[in-house]
Amino acid sequence: MKNRLEQLHPVPGGVNPDLEMERRGCPFDQKELTNLLDGGADKTVERKQLERIFLDHPCSQDDGVQLESLGSVDRYNSDLRRAKTLVSLATKARDEGLNDAIRAMFSAGLGCALTPDGNPLGLHFVMFIPTLMGQGTMDQIGDVLGRAWDLDLVGTYAQTELGHGTFIRGLELRATYLSDTEEFELHSPSVTAYKWWPGGLGNTANFAVVMAQLETGGVERGVHPFLIQIRDEETHEPLSGVIVGEIGPKMAMNSNDNGFLGFDHHRVPRSALLAKNSRVEIDGTYVKPPREKLGYATMILVRAAIALDMTIHLRKAVTIATRYSAVRRQGEPSPDGKESKILDFQTQQAKIFPPLAMSIGLHIAANSVWEMYNTIQNEIDQGVYDNLPELHAISCSIKVLVTSEAASAADQLRRSCGGHGFMSSSNLPGIFGLITASCTYEGENTVLLLQIARYLVKVAGQAAEGTPLPPSVAYLNNTFGHKTCVDIFTDFGLAELFEKVAHGMVTRAMAALKVENDWNSCSMVLVAAATAHSRSFVISEFSQGVANSPVSSKLRTILSNLFQLMAISWILENPANFLRFANLEFSHLDQLAQRRNSLLSTIRPLAVSLVDSFDFRDEVLRSTLGCWDGWVYHRLFQAAAKTPLNTSGGMPEGLKEQLNSRNQSKL
Amino acid sequence: MKNRLEQLHPVPGGVNPDLEMERRGCPFDQKELTNLLDGGADKTVERKQLERIFLDHPCSQDDGVQLESLGSVDRYNSDLRRAKTLVSLATKARDEGLNDAIRAMFSAGLGCALTPDGNPLGLHFVMFIPTLMGQGTMDQIGDVLGRAWDLDLVGTYAQTELGHGTFIRGLELRATYLSDTEEFELHSPSVTAYKWWPGGLGNTANFAVVMAQLETGGVERGVHPFLIQIRDEETHEPLSGVIVGEIGPKMAMNSNDNGFLGFDHHRVPRSALLAKNSRVEIDGTYVKPPREKLGYATMILVRAAIALDMTIHLRKAVTIATRYSAVRRQGEPSPDGKESKILDFQTQQAKIFPPLAMSIGLHIAANSVWEMYNTIQNEIDQGVYDNLPELHAISCSIKVLVTSEAASAADQLRRSCGGHGFMSSSNLPGIFGLITASCTYEGENTVLLLQIARYLVKVAGQAAEGTPLPPSVAYLNNTFGHKTCVDIFTDFGLAELFEKVAHGMVTRAMAALKVENDWNSCSMVLVAAATAHSRSFVISEFSQGVANSPVSSKLRTILSNLFQLMAISWILENPANFLRFANLEFSHLDQLAQRRNSLLSTIRPLAVSLVDSFDFRDEVLRSTLGCWDGWVYHRLFQAAAKTPLNTSGGMPEGLKEQLNSRNQSKL
Repeated sequence: MKNRLEQLHPVPGGVNPDLEMERRGCPFDQKELTNLLDGGADKTVERKQLERIFLDHPCSQDDGVQLESLGSVDRYNSDLRRAKTLVSLATKARDEGLNDAIRAMFSAGLGCALTPDGNPLGLHFVMFIPTLMGQGTMDQIGDVLGRAWDLDLVGTYAQTELGHGTFIRGLELRATYLSDTEEFELHSPSVTAYKWWPGGLGNTANFAVVMAQLETGGVERGVHPFLIQIRDEETHEPLSGVIVGEIGPKMAMNSNDNGFLGFDHHRVPRSALLAKNSRVEIDGTYVKPPREKLGYATMILVRAAIALDMTIHLRKAVTIATRYSAVRRQGEPSPDGKESKILDFQTQQAKIFPPLAMSIGLHIAANSVWEMYNTIQNEIDQGVYDNLPELHAISCSIKVLVTSEAASAADQLRRSCGGHGFMSSSNLPGIFGLITASCTYEGENTVLLLQIARYLVKVAGQAAEGTPLPPSVAYLNNTFGHKTCVDIFTDFGLAELFEKVAHGMVTRAMAALKVENDWNSCSMVLVAAATAHSRSFVISEFSQGVANSPVSSKLRTILSNLFQLMAISWILENPANFLRFANLEFSHLDQLAQRRNSLLSTIRPLAVSLVDSFDFRDEVLRSTLGCWDGWVYHRLFQAAAKTPLNTSGGMPEGLKEQLNSRNQSKL
Repeated sequence: MKNRLEQLHPVPGGVNPDLEMERRGCPFDQKELTNLLDGGADKTVERKQLERIFLDHPCSQDDGVQLESLGSVDRYNSDLRRAKTLVSLATKARDEGLNDAIRAMFSAGLGCALTPDGNPLGLHFVMFIPTLMGQGTMDQIGDVLGRAWDLDLVGTYAQTELGHGTFIRGLELRATYLSDTEEFELHSPSVTAYKWWPGGLGNTANFAVVMAQLETGGVERGVHPFLIQIRDEETHEPLSGVIVGEIGPKMAMNSNDNGFLGFDHHRVPRSALLAKNSRVEIDGTYVKPPREKLGYATMILVRAAIALDMTIHLRKAVTIATRYSAVRRQGEPSPDGKESKILDFQTQQAKIFPPLAMSIGLHIAANSVWEMYNTIQNEIDQGVYDNLPELHAISCSIKVLVTSEAASAADQLRRSCGGHGFMSSSNLPGIFGLITASCTYEGENTVLLLQIARYLVKVAGQAAEGTPLPPSVAYLNNTFGHKTCVDIFTDFGLAELFEKVAHGMVTRAMAALKVENDWNSCSMVLVAAATAHSRSFVISEFSQGVANSPVSSKLRTILSNLFQLMAISWILENPANFLRFANLEFSHLDQLAQRRNSLLSTIRPLAVSLVDSFDFRDEVLRSTLGCWDGWVYHRLFQAAAKTPLNTSGGMPEGLKEQLNSRNQSKL
């Protein structure tokens, strides 16, 4: 039943005429773009099927109270309940042949529709089960895995500690083998040795894969995975010797149930060490893994997946800002008596359309990394590891570039909606929180840039010796010396500018290293080189995607415009390196600025149709400002009407005192 | 009493040796910098006195449960209670001669220590009371004002509506004078006419100054202020015809109690119109204000105050990131067996030290605007308005530049702390939220940049005619044509580079306007010109502050280094305009990059001492990572130990179902 405030301004039927107008006479086939982003028409069909299964289910018909109004305990209970329903729906869907159902639970699109601020069961499926499968022997995992799929036990993956994240060798948790009892003793020697961050650990999981420094026969053997029960299966109390809890509120992802975990001389049987790759014999003899690099490939996959997810979040933010800007009016009324749509302001277009272009371009680039991974995974299965270093560098590039660009774009988009973008009900703060988190997790971005730089320095050295390099760095074999002509008008020409800059920046970093002979004091130029390389990679993938995607020429023209807008925006953001390394002159910059402005005008009439093609259901956008029907003000009002501070009934406590005290003594 | 988890890892006594080491042998007088930032030694004394009064009071000894864990109703109740205590403490302190006591309640330093996410009584003191005093006649306000100071009634200031913020003439709420009953009828004609955002309106205020379109005799008279009672003083229920409530959760400032307010043909007496400046006679005759520009001066003051506050927030974020980086270790252990402090990494220094420099430089610039205001206020009192347009542009510049630079710096600082910067207990997410909000409130930044651009276009036109311009734009009288020499080594030389760029950018914008003859299609170059001008203004004020502040030569050298770091960082962020308009060459850029690196090394050993000089008590920082003693991991653990998800006792609901369902049917 609607409360008194809700009844006041119900959302009108139909679509806000300001938005309807934008949708008239769309000159391209929107389905084509939708399919391109989904990865094919069949994928679009499957996505929509899953959306119907998940979103039309009663569990997604919430009471309209925003999560952000709830305390942490209520939030957790509500989200765990939803997460479990989601698992049962997804399992059923998968059994009925929808292969993407399990993955969809945790996607930035559908997954976030139901568990918008994280999912306490995420790591169970994304890390616990895969790690068991990858690291455990059949003996070890047979039983556990079945129960895990049935959610009869809940697991997590515990690696990062309070004191160590990136530098894995520094992890402190120790697992010492005691051959007399054939046990491992797990012990956290200090507060910094506590595991910190694992999702689902706080209150949900009763099992965990725990990474610990293995010691046998007095020798350290490096970090190894152990399968450990952490809570009693009946009472859910921590086992003796196990200290576990929740880490507290965060900027976002508050439903991930992130936890901490410490051990106090906790004994586990020898079988706890996941022994597919290395093992400890009864007498304590350590048997090395046949190949060390296996974890490597998983990281590549995870980074490509993060990049793809962040482009989805970015497309959501772009959709919200675009639709709102087509409805919001401001300033001197024009002759028709109406104020201008803010989407007609050049400055607003410059805030929204480059992110729009990026949200497609970064997707195309990330998707191509995802496909490279699949190719190389086949090679790995056949024992060929040659392409792994290049792919590792590429996966770092795509992760860094997508997360950092998407984060700053999301913030820009939020601000482009003015004060209303600050409302949680716009979902822009939520989206920003989820994206900015990805800048520091799964490889902090600066650390990854320095890893890319290491790779670049290595291959640039090879190039100097005349060795032909793999595709993503082949430009380092090129001197560009003779090419002083500049082509700023074609996709190919623009992409070449980025290669020239990357080439110049890598060369400069090499020179600096030669002079300084110290990695740390060169790290700023190294980071700059890695960034230029990563941008060039993404630009090149986007331009090739535009050229090679099997789309109509109409859509290809639009994609080419978006490509050019993204490339030119990146050039104009910091043109100095283009002046220096790509033979650009000041007059080129003026031409590029003009071209940028004209692209903004070209995209303007298509903007709403483009974001409509992203095909987000309102339940996925979760935004008062981005809703399909454009009744933004009614929806803001309706969202407010439902907040606990308006519905909790009676006078708030703090106020009762206020009024009571009036009749007593004045302050 | 401490709970079980809290007892496990108590915070050790003393100071973390990693931090203690940093503090040894500080080569400058920290008190000198503290006094400079406080505005004098006496101001430091007064601040510390107020800190003792506020922070040593039992109300600031909280139970350690982070606000972010609480639901909105609990948060509101808890913050209103604290806000009221604060008022009584501040009133008492003021009566005892501490003049800054009232203002301190709402400052980014002390105020935020007690009400860290906004204050439901903020607008009562900051806008309601001052507007009454500025706009009401003695008859109207005498009684109300006394009660307001006593908190016997609570007011707010309601201007912004759902559909209109920046464009004030577009406000829709209407106040129609009905001469037969000598009343105004207030009516909100649509959902967009609802007031939206006023702090304290949601559940706290029972009175409001409401801005409405005045109509008398069928003629619109523009927006005017009305003093309106909105809730019953006994029951706190909205008066009939008044629709009021809270607007719901936001990215930050959730304790501001922001509300909405609509009127349904609500009648108020003629005396409700605050009539100091304009009034309506009994018969409906409208009497114009003698002078329209009075609101203007208040806006200038508010913007300078915002800028000053944001530099405080920035200094808090810098303090947190610096101290944490002096304790956090990462990477290959050095010969002493310890991993490196992350503060020793060049990339980390480049993330933290330029914001450190800015947090001082932007303060100096904002403070000088604050002083200009005081000077010009005296002129205004004497009827001289000549300097108002310049000061208005300057106040826009300082507001835009401080808020936008501080917002991106705060985000950078948060990320520089890796995952731990994402924890609410670090306070970095909270600080970011408070700063980024200021980019869109009190004049959205892009709108303000376009206002600055309008001023620049006007005065550049005058300069072209040979008219001498006021100080902040006097560089437009200069052609710089003959000055091709470049001085990148002195403060003065660096400041001149910024003037040349601003000059070049304004000239380019003028040229574009001439060609295009259309404001909107030139808005990107106009915004760029306004930004360059604003940067030049801030750089110039900082360099003059360094030269002219009455400090020791030791401190002056340090300030000069910080100035150069800030200036060079800004140049290197986007050097193209310096290449183009300030005669820089590529070789200069390399020299500047080297100089930047050497400044980072120079500042490194001073970093902790510099942030210590900002003199924030732990209660003000509210940060596990930034605490004085540097026991960051223990404090993170302690904060987690207190979260409701760890202390609520018993098994969370969602989990009970989980365990119960196991014994029934599998999923």
